[in-house]
Amino acid sequence: MKLKHYSDIPLEAVTMEGARGASIRWLISEKDGAPNFATRMFEVAAGGFTPYHTHSWEHENYILSGEGVLVTEEGDKPFKEGDVIYVPPFYKHSYRNTGSGVLKFLCIIPHPEAVDVPKKKVNPFAKGVANNC
Amino acid sequence: MKLKHYSDIPLEAVTMEGARGASIRWLISEKDGAPNFATRMFEVAAGGFTPYHTHSWEHENYILSGEGVLVTEEGDKPFKEGDVIYVPPFYKHSYRNTGSGVLKFLCIIPHPEAVDVPKKKVNPFAKGVANNC
Repeated sequence: MKLKHYSDIPLEAVTMEGARGASIRWLISEKDGAPNFATRMFEVAAGGFTPYHTHSWEHENYILSGEGVLVTEEGDKPFKEGDVIYVPPFYKHSYRNTGSGVLKFLCIIPHPEAVDVPKKKVNPFAKGVANNC
Repeated sequence: MKLKHYSDIPLEAVTMEGARGASIRWLISEKDGAPNFATRMFEVAAGGFTPYHTHSWEHENYILSGEGVLVTEEGDKPFKEGDVIYVPPFYKHSYRNTGSGVLKFLCIIPHPEAVDVPKKKVNPFAKGVANNC
């Protein structure tokens, strides 16, 4: 079990080409033993952005604070605090801060492959029908 | 691609035995084509809780607002806004609202099995080393 405040998790610069003013915290990752997916927090400074690119895995996002646009081949899609974004595999995207403050959002991605820990057998609650936690 | 405010996604009562005052929104799920995991938001009323139980899959949580405790076999672990929680598979847990307002948190769970959509091949960014979005 892990329980800590996000601010106690290191903030690392996003050094990938095509990024500006973006940083990341790996909130929960394989290092914690998480078997299937990683939850990260991005912080993007005013005027900053993540690379405009595509890849074979999906993103599930939750906007924590600030405002911006998802840059896509279909145009810029504005988002704000409390918005939820699903970026499918192979969908070209960039997150761009269009506000005056820091943009913070969660970005959850799958691991390349499952980690060797006790694994789920059947999860009857993931169909969006039943509803436990 | 999906982009909407969380409040536009239905709030459903958690009817499972052992829950009180808990509701759920399936923010991103298999219904959206998400191939690997589902992002849900829980809202727990003052005095409410989710079932005290265990299961074979993990939780990755982010506390959005309010305060509470994670009830565990090692005692109650207090949490507040901005906290991150990783609940491993087979770890007994309940989320209990100990504040006076609504407790809101994200809870991400794996699908029972991958959905048949174009899948990730290699995700070099999930090791917590590289850092794109």
